Amino acid sequence: MKVGIIGASGYTGQELVTLLIGHPKIELSMVTSRAHAGKPLSSVVPKLGHKGNIISFVNPVLKELIQSDIELFFLALPHGTAAEYAISLLDAGKKIIDLSADFRLNSSALYKEFYGTDHPAPKWLPLAQYGLPELHPVSWQKSSLIASPGCYPTSILVPLAPLLREKLIDENEIIINSISGISGAGKNASERLLFCERNESAGAYGLPKHRHLSEIEEQLSEFAGQSITLSFHPHLAPMNRGLCSTISVRPKYPLDESQIRDCWENAYPNRPFVQVLGKGEFPETANVVGTNRIDISVSADSRMNRYILCSAEDNLLKGAGGQAIQAMNLCNGYTEDCGLV
Amino acid sequence: MKVGIIGASGYTGQELVTLLIGHPKIELSMVTSRAHAGKPLSSVVPKLGHKGNIISFVNPVLKELIQSDIELFFLALPHGTAAEYAISLLDAGKKIIDLSADFRLNSSALYKEFYGTDHPAPKWLPLAQYGLPELHPVSWQKSSLIASPGCYPTSILVPLAPLLREKLIDENEIIINSISGISGAGKNASERLLFCERNESAGAYGLPKHRHLSEIEEQLSEFAGQSITLSFHPHLAPMNRGLCSTISVRPKYPLDESQIRDCWENAYPNRPFVQVLGKGEFPETANVVGTNRIDISVSADSRMNRYILCSAEDNLLKGAGGQAIQAMNLCNGYTEDCGLV
Amino acid sequence: MKVGIIGASGYTGQELVTLLIGHPKIELSMVTSRAHAGKPLSSVVPKLGHKGNIISFVNPVLKELIQSDIELFFLALPHGTAAEYAISLLDAGKKIIDLSADFRLNSSALYKEFYGTDHPAPKWLPLAQYGLPELHPVSWQKSSLIASPGCYPTSILVPLAPLLREKLIDENEIIINSISGISGAGKNASERLLFCERNESAGAYGLPKHRHLSEIEEQLSEFAGQSITLSFHPHLAPMNRGLCSTISVRPKYPLDESQIRDCWENAYPNRPFVQVLGKGEFPETANVVGTNRIDISVSADSRMNRYILCSAEDNLLKGAGGQAIQAMNLCNGYTEDCGLV
Amino acid sequence: MKVGIIGASGYTGQELVTLLIGHPKIELSMVTSRAHAGKPLSSVVPKLGHKGNIISFVNPVLKELIQSDIELFFLALPHGTAAEYAISLLDAGKKIIDLSADFRLNSSALYKEFYGTDHPAPKWLPLAQYGLPELHPVSWQKSSLIASPGCYPTSILVPLAPLLREKLIDENEIIINSISGISGAGKNASERLLFCERNESAGAYGLPKHRHLSEIEEQLSEFAGQSITLSFHPHLAPMNRGLCSTISVRPKYPLDESQIRDCWENAYPNRPFVQVLGKGEFPETANVVGTNRIDISVSADSRMNRYILCSAEDNLLKGAGGQAIQAMNLCNGYTEDCGLV
Repeated sequence: MKVGIIGASGYTGQELVTLLIGHPKIELSMVTSRAHAGKPLSSVVPKLGHKGNIISFVNPVLKELIQSDIELFFLALPHGTAAEYAISLLDAGKKIIDLSADFRLNSSALYKEFYGTDHPAPKWLPLAQYGLPELHPVSWQKSSLIASPGCYPTSILVPLAPLLREKLIDENEIIINSISGISGAGKNASERLLFCERNESAGAYGLPKHRHLSEIEEQLSEFAGQSITLSFHPHLAPMNRGLCSTISVRPKYPLDESQIRDCWENAYPNRPFVQVLGKGEFPETANVVGTNRIDISVSADSRMNRYILCSAEDNLLKGAGGQAIQAMNLCNGYTEDCGLV
Repeated sequence: MKVGIIGASGYTGQELVTLLIGHPKIELSMVTSRAHAGKPLSSVVPKLGHKGNIISFVNPVLKELIQSDIELFFLALPHGTAAEYAISLLDAGKKIIDLSADFRLNSSALYKEFYGTDHPAPKWLPLAQYGLPELHPVSWQKSSLIASPGCYPTSILVPLAPLLREKLIDENEIIINSISGISGAGKNASERLLFCERNESAGAYGLPKHRHLSEIEEQLSEFAGQSITLSFHPHLAPMNRGLCSTISVRPKYPLDESQIRDCWENAYPNRPFVQVLGKGEFPETANVVGTNRIDISVSADSRMNRYILCSAEDNLLKGAGGQAIQAMNLCNGYTEDCGLV
Repeated sequence: MKVGIIGASGYTGQELVTLLIGHPKIELSMVTSRAHAGKPLSSVVPKLGHKGNIISFVNPVLKELIQSDIELFFLALPHGTAAEYAISLLDAGKKIIDLSADFRLNSSALYKEFYGTDHPAPKWLPLAQYGLPELHPVSWQKSSLIASPGCYPTSILVPLAPLLREKLIDENEIIINSISGISGAGKNASERLLFCERNESAGAYGLPKHRHLSEIEEQLSEFAGQSITLSFHPHLAPMNRGLCSTISVRPKYPLDESQIRDCWENAYPNRPFVQVLGKGEFPETANVVGTNRIDISVSADSRMNRYILCSAEDNLLKGAGGQAIQAMNLCNGYTEDCGLV
Repeated sequence: MKVGIIGASGYTGQELVTLLIGHPKIELSMVTSRAHAGKPLSSVVPKLGHKGNIISFVNPVLKELIQSDIELFFLALPHGTAAEYAISLLDAGKKIIDLSADFRLNSSALYKEFYGTDHPAPKWLPLAQYGLPELHPVSWQKSSLIASPGCYPTSILVPLAPLLREKLIDENEIIINSISGISGAGKNASERLLFCERNESAGAYGLPKHRHLSEIEEQLSEFAGQSITLSFHPHLAPMNRGLCSTISVRPKYPLDESQIRDCWENAYPNRPFVQVLGKGEFPETANVVGTNRIDISVSADSRMNRYILCSAEDNLLKGAGGQAIQAMNLCNGYTEDCGLV
């Protein structure tokens, strides 16, 4: 299958490029970038070396994208821009895996509340599949549009969704703290993201209503069968990649740690990319960076009658490009981990 | 006044050395270290340069400590060891500022619960002053023993204690997440603290019952006038210094952000080392590292009827050595920030 | 082919484990570690996740190693210890790829000069193949013992050897400065390698006679056809992986940059792991970390009649484990990059 | 004395602000920044806290600068812009300490060669004092213009100048490798300086003719009494601050290490900011960051008949703002280290 990447020069785009060039089942036949059109891939992704010279960036000209023999496009574009390309390409019969936030929500009202503008294509919202394959089976039969989840939501939905679905925890008592590496903020030449500004620093940001909160709550509400509101506190820490979440929840009735782990094992049987840690183990981002895995753990906070759920993932893999490939693999009938190990 | 430091080779000890050598009102006349006895200070604290050669480490011989003309000793020793020195020196009429955990608690039962052994000198527990001067006035008239607070507790007590004292927030709904730089774990040659193990990694540890929890809860209970139990989730992030805490609380009745800020301003009028940030500002560790300041902020999480309190400090200054000097300054009648700016 | 790794818990050992578990042509059937015997691989290399649980560390019992059906052992042991295992296993007919310094030199006198003890098996020195495949063809026909090069030597020999062989540069005017990430110092729980000691610091060490100098000079002398002495200044910088070298050389006669590049292209035609950068490009470690590639560049320093050669590699891949696999691939008749891309 | 800082929002400017606010002998009465005019200092230098609110940035209006009662201006501006302000302010009778490159060279031809444009005020070049006080006595009697040296030149001139003046080393055989922290590149919102681009990376840049080379060679030529050309290889490493240089030199006649150290001790008697390290010691940037000190060492490379000189400094202190204050202190008749310890 021939695939293309639109907007391939950011950190997510680079990760997609690297994964797709090495993927045994597909052919990466187009990468676009307005800023780098004409230059070989390796000029932007030098880690590719010689292999990166066989393909060059082109300008994303919609007509050419449509007329090409490419079946599937990955969109690694800013939100808003992604929707524009998606709509035209979908109408032309192409398949789309969109890594922006544009099609992750079902509700256009929620989109407007969190993103500040009307959604450009509300009719596509109910058609888009939320591409977290461990929670939602994905298939090209359902639709040609997959919205790949955000990095924070992935780290939060994987541990929480099964517990809410099984009604093990209180829906109104969820408090989440997350720590992200700096690549989560994208490759934007802003002062705030300079090495000397972020190195040797940590802190919360974007409180109390980070945009990813909309996606987290809408997804969890679906699993809980009722509307969920929660607290979400994102932080930055000085590392390139990696994201961990620490989630405090209250059980609905007396539980022990093993019941939480059992719930997870039942929800994720034989899934290669979810690992439930044992008693006394905690996820660390270094253990998952470079993999498409998410590690999850539970600790009983019995003095407070609460449980502490922890997770760690690579924000650019399971939190972005890796998860998008995983969804493609499943839709295309490849093994789930094809090109991801 | 002549002062000495017992156990001066760890990270807290080095910070004390550096601050006391530059302090205009006191004379640092003894530093001890078993491992480095005979070597000049600058061999362990090379940042001192030539100034560090005027004084050398000596072995801590109790008899000599007692017979010296030193009035005040800072103890930067492991818990347990600190108490042994403290008791003998106090009995000999010396003043003590102890940076270990040995005298921070009032309750010997709590000490045993969290530290696993009987307290070696329970009679001193009620006499020790908890050396967080913004919350507890300190004075040599009260006693000759000051227990300098831990780094996590300082970052948590400063924002929380006034709100509990003023009964603004619910005592049973407090959830705290903290991120610490690696120096908080001390200068121990363990595999876990190697550069390559901690660099590019973040994660929670020590859940659910970190030792500092005992100190946090006992102190907060005193301010609340009732027993407090809370959730505390410490994390490590790859930076040398700096610690931030993000605290979720529920108001007892409808409040707005400014009432929280007013409460803080009233609790800390003209205190040089507490800075209340304005609306939309969040503390970052880089803004306070190298200072004895703690920055605190509040954000209304109105969708959850909660408030998010954030704080940041230098774990080796306001969280350890700086705070100890601050307490000495006040007890000795110097200005609070003498030698600390 | 069944292979084993002796001493698999250090940074080099972990890298070998990761590469060999994913290698399509071989079966990793034994990993040894005295400290971790009985524990699954993933307890030491958590990045492996579930896959790391299919094999556990065992104690390295020589008799069992010999009696096993393993054909090839990788040794990732301290120097001295490596030789002990190597000799017995070679005598028993096993193949060995040794990643220690024990068999890298031809001269036992040089070994004694730089390592301070008599070589334990001097008769094997002339038989060992120096496993830098771009410079020395490797083959099990030549011998069953391959000495895998050090990280500094690899970064220096690849750019220098062809220029000396072709007599383009002066043999007596070579000055090398290298910067290594901290994993080059191994996984040793020493104070010097603690996060807070190495983070935010850079400096030279081990001047003027680092042990790798022996290997660099002996190898270069062979290519030059005359004895070479040079200056080598290693430095540490705060990063996990990556090593770069900057080499100042004097041409024997007027040259231009392209003649240097041509010499390299002729020396390394179609080698997948050597990349010659173009005019004005400089290697950066981030561009090669995670790959088995070495990037090399040349800049004319015409004001001084010198050339500046730069190189960058991943010290744990092309500088250690990756290169060892590359040698195995070639000896076993696999493609050179099998399991390395 | 009242002083002002023009261009106070970059990293050098921030360092000057911090030092001058704490300086006991002067009053910082103006800080300018086009981008931040109207905002309090602490909005850009949050480490200052409340103290930073007593003064706000203003726009640099030349007429107002001239009419003010400020006697001395520090210029922390890009080269070219600095000269414009300097000329007008000097003509108006103000004193200037310029931290840009505009007045560091004596030769306007050299300026044009390295900076690409004609010097805007060549008549001031011979009048400017090169403000490295350990090598050039500074005095307002000589002139009202001090050109504060670059970070690389300081790290190189301090160890080299005395050896050349005393004719201990060969003038034609000097090869210098330097490693700088990222703040040396300034606070410019460029992609290349983003956290994720610089973290976990090291490499050479700007070869073979970095702009600071002009300043290094011109200064050294003056000390040597003959024209000096040398090789200079700057590198970046992932740390905020700190710069180290490793310099290979050839002795003119047989020397031992102690003769080099004696030469330095004689050149820098009782200078508080130069520290000569003992045998076997090497400078590390972490030992000097946060101080105005430069550490220097020598190691005999006897196999090559060369010496290896190493130095380390804080690029923003001894390499920039600290050194500028040091020059002011001496010119104003304060103690050399006033406000710098």
